[in-house]
Amino acid sequence: MVVLPVSKIWTPELHVTNGVKTTIKHGNKDLLVHSNGTIEHMVIMNTVVGCEVNLYNYPFASDFCPIAINVWALNGCGMFLNFGAVRTTSENRGDWLTENVELNAKGGRDDRNYLWVSLKMRSENPFLSLVLPSILIIVADVVSFSLPLGGGERISFKVTLVLSFIMFLIILNNLLPGGGQCSPIIRKHFCFCLVILVLSMLQSMVLTRLAKCGTLQPCSLSKSKDSLLKDTDNEEESKSDITVIKLNASEEEKKNTPLQKVVKFLDKMAAQDQKKMRRHRFANKVDLICFCIYLTVLVVYAVVILYFSFGSRCKINQLDFWS
Amino acid sequence: MVVLPVSKIWTPELHVTNGVKTTIKHGNKDLLVHSNGTIEHMVIMNTVVGCEVNLYNYPFASDFCPIAINVWALNGCGMFLNFGAVRTTSENRGDWLTENVELNAKGGRDDRNYLWVSLKMRSENPFLSLVLPSILIIVADVVSFSLPLGGGERISFKVTLVLSFIMFLIILNNLLPGGGQCSPIIRKHFCFCLVILVLSMLQSMVLTRLAKCGTLQPCSLSKSKDSLLKDTDNEEESKSDITVIKLNASEEEKKNTPLQKVVKFLDKMAAQDQKKMRRHRFANKVDLICFCIYLTVLVVYAVVILYFSFGSRCKINQLDFWS
Amino acid sequence: MVVLPVSKIWTPELHVTNGVKTTIKHGNKDLLVHSNGTIEHMVIMNTVVGCEVNLYNYPFASDFCPIAINVWALNGCGMFLNFGAVRTTSENRGDWLTENVELNAKGGRDDRNYLWVSLKMRSENPFLSLVLPSILIIVADVVSFSLPLGGGERISFKVTLVLSFIMFLIILNNLLPGGGQCSPIIRKHFCFCLVILVLSMLQSMVLTRLAKCGTLQPCSLSKSKDSLLKDTDNEEESKSDITVIKLNASEEEKKNTPLQKVVKFLDKMAAQDQKKMRRHRFANKVDLICFCIYLTVLVVYAVVILYFSFGSRCKINQLDFWS
Amino acid sequence: MVVLPVSKIWTPELHVTNGVKTTIKHGNKDLLVHSNGTIEHMVIMNTVVGCEVNLYNYPFASDFCPIAINVWALNGCGMFLNFGAVRTTSENRGDWLTENVELNAKGGRDDRNYLWVSLKMRSENPFLSLVLPSILIIVADVVSFSLPLGGGERISFKVTLVLSFIMFLIILNNLLPGGGQCSPIIRKHFCFCLVILVLSMLQSMVLTRLAKCGTLQPCSLSKSKDSLLKDTDNEEESKSDITVIKLNASEEEKKNTPLQKVVKFLDKMAAQDQKKMRRHRFANKVDLICFCIYLTVLVVYAVVILYFSFGSRCKINQLDFWS
Amino acid sequence: MVVLPVSKIWTPELHVTNGVKTTIKHGNKDLLVHSNGTIEHMVIMNTVVGCEVNLYNYPFASDFCPIAINVWALNGCGMFLNFGAVRTTSENRGDWLTENVELNAKGGRDDRNYLWVSLKMRSENPFLSLVLPSILIIVADVVSFSLPLGGGERISFKVTLVLSFIMFLIILNNLLPGGGQCSPIIRKHFCFCLVILVLSMLQSMVLTRLAKCGTLQPCSLSKSKDSLLKDTDNEEESKSDITVIKLNASEEEKKNTPLQKVVKFLDKMAAQDQKKMRRHRFANKVDLICFCIYLTVLVVYAVVILYFSFGSRCKINQLDFWS
Repeated sequence: MVVLPVSKIWTPELHVTNGVKTTIKHGNKDLLVHSNGTIEHMVIMNTVVGCEVNLYNYPFASDFCPIAINVWALNGCGMFLNFGAVRTTSENRGDWLTENVELNAKGGRDDRNYLWVSLKMRSENPFLSLVLPSILIIVADVVSFSLPLGGGERISFKVTLVLSFIMFLIILNNLLPGGGQCSPIIRKHFCFCLVILVLSMLQSMVLTRLAKCGTLQPCSLSKSKDSLLKDTDNEEESKSDITVIKLNASEEEKKNTPLQKVVKFLDKMAAQDQKKMRRHRFANKVDLICFCIYLTVLVVYAVVILYFSFGSRCKINQLDFWS
Repeated sequence: MVVLPVSKIWTPELHVTNGVKTTIKHGNKDLLVHSNGTIEHMVIMNTVVGCEVNLYNYPFASDFCPIAINVWALNGCGMFLNFGAVRTTSENRGDWLTENVELNAKGGRDDRNYLWVSLKMRSENPFLSLVLPSILIIVADVVSFSLPLGGGERISFKVTLVLSFIMFLIILNNLLPGGGQCSPIIRKHFCFCLVILVLSMLQSMVLTRLAKCGTLQPCSLSKSKDSLLKDTDNEEESKSDITVIKLNASEEEKKNTPLQKVVKFLDKMAAQDQKKMRRHRFANKVDLICFCIYLTVLVVYAVVILYFSFGSRCKINQLDFWS
Repeated sequence: MVVLPVSKIWTPELHVTNGVKTTIKHGNKDLLVHSNGTIEHMVIMNTVVGCEVNLYNYPFASDFCPIAINVWALNGCGMFLNFGAVRTTSENRGDWLTENVELNAKGGRDDRNYLWVSLKMRSENPFLSLVLPSILIIVADVVSFSLPLGGGERISFKVTLVLSFIMFLIILNNLLPGGGQCSPIIRKHFCFCLVILVLSMLQSMVLTRLAKCGTLQPCSLSKSKDSLLKDTDNEEESKSDITVIKLNASEEEKKNTPLQKVVKFLDKMAAQDQKKMRRHRFANKVDLICFCIYLTVLVVYAVVILYFSFGSRCKINQLDFWS
Repeated sequence: MVVLPVSKIWTPELHVTNGVKTTIKHGNKDLLVHSNGTIEHMVIMNTVVGCEVNLYNYPFASDFCPIAINVWALNGCGMFLNFGAVRTTSENRGDWLTENVELNAKGGRDDRNYLWVSLKMRSENPFLSLVLPSILIIVADVVSFSLPLGGGERISFKVTLVLSFIMFLIILNNLLPGGGQCSPIIRKHFCFCLVILVLSMLQSMVLTRLAKCGTLQPCSLSKSKDSLLKDTDNEEESKSDITVIKLNASEEEKKNTPLQKVVKFLDKMAAQDQKKMRRHRFANKVDLICFCIYLTVLVVYAVVILYFSFGSRCKINQLDFWS
Repeated sequence: MVVLPVSKIWTPELHVTNGVKTTIKHGNKDLLVHSNGTIEHMVIMNTVVGCEVNLYNYPFASDFCPIAINVWALNGCGMFLNFGAVRTTSENRGDWLTENVELNAKGGRDDRNYLWVSLKMRSENPFLSLVLPSILIIVADVVSFSLPLGGGERISFKVTLVLSFIMFLIILNNLLPGGGQCSPIIRKHFCFCLVILVLSMLQSMVLTRLAKCGTLQPCSLSKSKDSLLKDTDNEEESKSDITVIKLNASEEEKKNTPLQKVVKFLDKMAAQDQKKMRRHRFANKVDLICFCIYLTVLVVYAVVILYFSFGSRCKINQLDFWS
């Protein structure tokens, strides 16, 4: 039993077919040569594998990754690998769990061995920081329908929601895994959220106008401003003189006229208020219909997205470097 | 005593079992060969160790990290390491303090020596930039219950709080240490904060509606708009003619009617105001109850989170590369 | 048939003319020497090519990239490359699709061979995260013209829109591909969006003032504040004594004066309201005209940007390292 | 005088004791051997030194950094360094100015030579982008006390200030130099700013409530809502019938009652307004006191922070690698 | 004509005096030895030069960068470089345009040759993403003077502007080129913008208070609240009994008193309104003066900044490594 430095013996080369960067480190630069000619040597192979993990169901992704370990052998001339038992270590660390590793051979060929590594993502963190906020924002948008239409509150609320979501989307774009063949469905989810938030904001804007003017035509805007005395002015726009004359003309109504003017003023306020009320009631009805449509769309969407997230899979041929 | 270049002598190899990247630098390329055969040589070993530090209690984390230093020895044939005294230098620099380093051997085996390094985090900075803002945001949310329900202030305040917190969470996601086996409990803390802020915002929205309409049903929305003259209109919606007739019919009330109309108007205002008041008082009572529940939840949560942060530990087997 | 280590045979050098970093890895350190003198050897060449991809139409970019593979041959003395068939693998991965690869020779010269690689971008993700939000923001800006001019809602909405867009632009600046010769047209698109949003915000500000004062001159600002009793004050600014005298002077109007004062007050309110209405109507007309101009500009811009995005191309001479 | 390649001569090794990464590049691979045996050779040493710069006074930091250059010499056997004159070049570039470099020897020992490099930070940029905005935000917070308490303006202003500052703090956390032994005092400055902003916001919230209800107890909230007719309702909550009866009962007051009801209404408005005024005046007094306390705290803090920034120093033993 | 591998011939060394990292790659490992002793060999030198580009006028920067190529020659013994013609390739790529390259020698010395490279920045992108937004924000701030003083709109607008600009500044700090000797003048530009925005915000806050209270003293705050009935209360603060007595005392004014009280109420409203008007007019005048000062400062600043950006240069001695 002799210990010899590695450089004195010709060491054959291993390589990983789909390896992006493989560094083979000798566990020890010494070899142990037994008397029967067997050589004991330890090799540590760090390999970075070009394995496109399927992130379609991200953040609930789980996939398989092959690691093809080969030696060069042509027409029976060359080296042969003899795989022993495969063991895993530190499989519970980092963002991905190594669930299982087994040794396979493609098509039963000896020179096409690969390690079939089952990986599963830890979905807790991305769920809490990506999916949960988007659900909360949608819930807040649904509940914001309870805010009154007329005031600026609902619009300003929805605007803040939409713009924050756009910021959210831009930041996410960096965090989310890149596209590739099986682009994660969560990207589509965020786009849907953005579109539904924008639509709900636009609906609030349009209904606010509807509640104020009773119509969406631009010209009527000037006629329906909320002014307590507008109608009076409209009717008697250039008849201020006549009003004065009337005032003087009826001497017997001298005492009553001022009071009746006040009453008339209150009546007009009431009439105007009534008109406003009718518009508001109409806008509220439209709002209720929109809300129902909105809820239906959300429920349908939730079913669809849950089906695509958990029920379907996007297949990637992980062994295409051999095809 | 001769000084010889290193390359002329066969130098055995050290390696770090759990080392991700180890570079062994010769302190000097010369060896000092004493006359008695002893060779003096200095080796500087920079090693990056794959040691999953337990960040469960982050930012109050402290953990142990083993550094397993080995030589290759089989059946008594090979090299033996003779560890001298271990000293630390620059242990007070960077974000982690090196508290202690001692030399251990696993299971008493000579070939399984490791340095047991006790590390402690400097928790001042992450506390100030992560924990303090979250506490301040929660305090601001609690105090914001003092803002009046009716106006848009409370809602807009809470909305800003929630959306800022979502942004905060996204930025944090990059700063916070990644998941692994013992995901830091501070992630759950931030999620709890987010959920409680959203719930408190939704509660404000719903109570704002309650204070305005007195009910949560959508159809009643149209009936309870804040209009001073609405009731008048409701009663006499299409009886404007009748009002005029009434006005003319009662000749003896001719003088009083206008004044009484004003009084009636004021009475209706009062009645409406009273209805509003009752709704407000009801909403305020519900708000007070919600506030108490909210405070209770926060206190319970504070106790729970303090217990988990300081009272419990998540165990990681740091020596599993040998198991 | 003998297997020899590579180092025993003199291996000629390949190089990539436009390669920034090229590492040639031997597929195997062994050579297979056939009895007829042919040597079988495998070389893996990882090359990073300095190929400026044309991103003018980003995110709908597609371009060609040459990879010039050369050996050194001068005056017939040197090495000659014999290219076989070119095959692609993993062409469907990552953000860029490899559409086609073919072997060309520049000017028919044997020593100027290059691989002509057709690349196409996956435009789905950048479209969803860059183009879609900008379109939604513009749509929201268009619809925000339906918000009433007078209240602060429209201005605050547009301000939020503009400032968010500036943030958006800064973040984008990092995401967007750098300038170079064919700067992506999407940069100009974002600048146009920013300018149009700012102009629309400034228009809203100016029109809000117009609706409030009826003029843009600064001095008139003080005269047109919305106060119900302003006119009374203006007329009788320092005549409070006279009012009292008048009140006492006309004994016969003693009863009517108070009531008529109320009526006068209401009349003035009405007159003021009418003035306000006229201003509002004027501002609304100007607003409508601005809206039409705005829409026209947007439509013209949409046509222009679509033409430049899809109809035109920016040419880069990819083979200029040989010119 | 002969020129020889370096490899033909045995070149001794230099090393930097506290060097993280040192690459020694031969200025030229040729040596110039003079006839008297002197060898001229040029060595370029790029070294990255592990020198923890004291950033306590950041961004006005200035510190010393030792660079220990050694050769290996034991018991008089080895190599000796002969330092010539030290010159600096490009000392005016980058973020740090090299003020002075001198050659020292620790404890007068020949083998413990080091270059003592005095560095000074260019403090202009971090001052403008870190310190100036924080000062401006505090000034804005002080001036915001001039905003009226009642309206939502002051609260919304302070909320925006606080939340922006939290964002600011998070972004800063990445920009600011890490902790270590002498954590920069500017981190504490930012935390103080955050806490003072939050306290000032909470004070505004509480005083807003005080101005509205006159008390901080939750039950009184329902009683002090700003309604013009509330008192009327409170007194006559379920006595609407009685009012009618009263109206009918006093026939002689038939004419006066309506008018007097209006007067009573106005009186109640006045009384309520007066109550509101008293509360407002009280809240304003409390606000003024708070403002004075706030100003005092700020002035004291400014003195303290200026003393700690410029008057004190945090000492680091830069030569502890030798201790 | 023989082709020999490089390693068989002693190859002299080139080096770049101011090169941070220089890698010399042999274009081909073979040499072509002509029969007359001339050796043809190709060397590719990738060099990273430590050249501090003058960014004073950023983003309109253009500068020169020397690349000093040397061989080692002492007292006539060594190697001499024979520079041929210099050609550029790909000079139109990336963010910097290579305008011209010429070969110079410092002080006419043969051994101090350098390539004098003229570089020019592509200023389009940084102009669009840095300068344009800052100009738009300043323009928005100028136009925001047209918003009415009294309402919260102007303040909330300016606050948003300022806080966004602070965010903008922080993000910019990372994008902008670092300080060095000639710190880019654009940093000062952004600081000026920030300061002017903050001052304009503070001015709005102070004038809002002036418009509301008519004075800046804190005690007067309580006296000038906008309440319609305040004056009444002030006069008769604890005389509610007296009012009742008066009411009963004058029997003959029984009928008129209620009406006259209404008139008195309206008169007081008018008086108060008039006082408010006077304050508003005063505040508006001050606002107009501030606006003029603001515009003047901006115009002066624009002239100064344009002069410094285009009219002046900051000189850097690029050849100081030889001095």
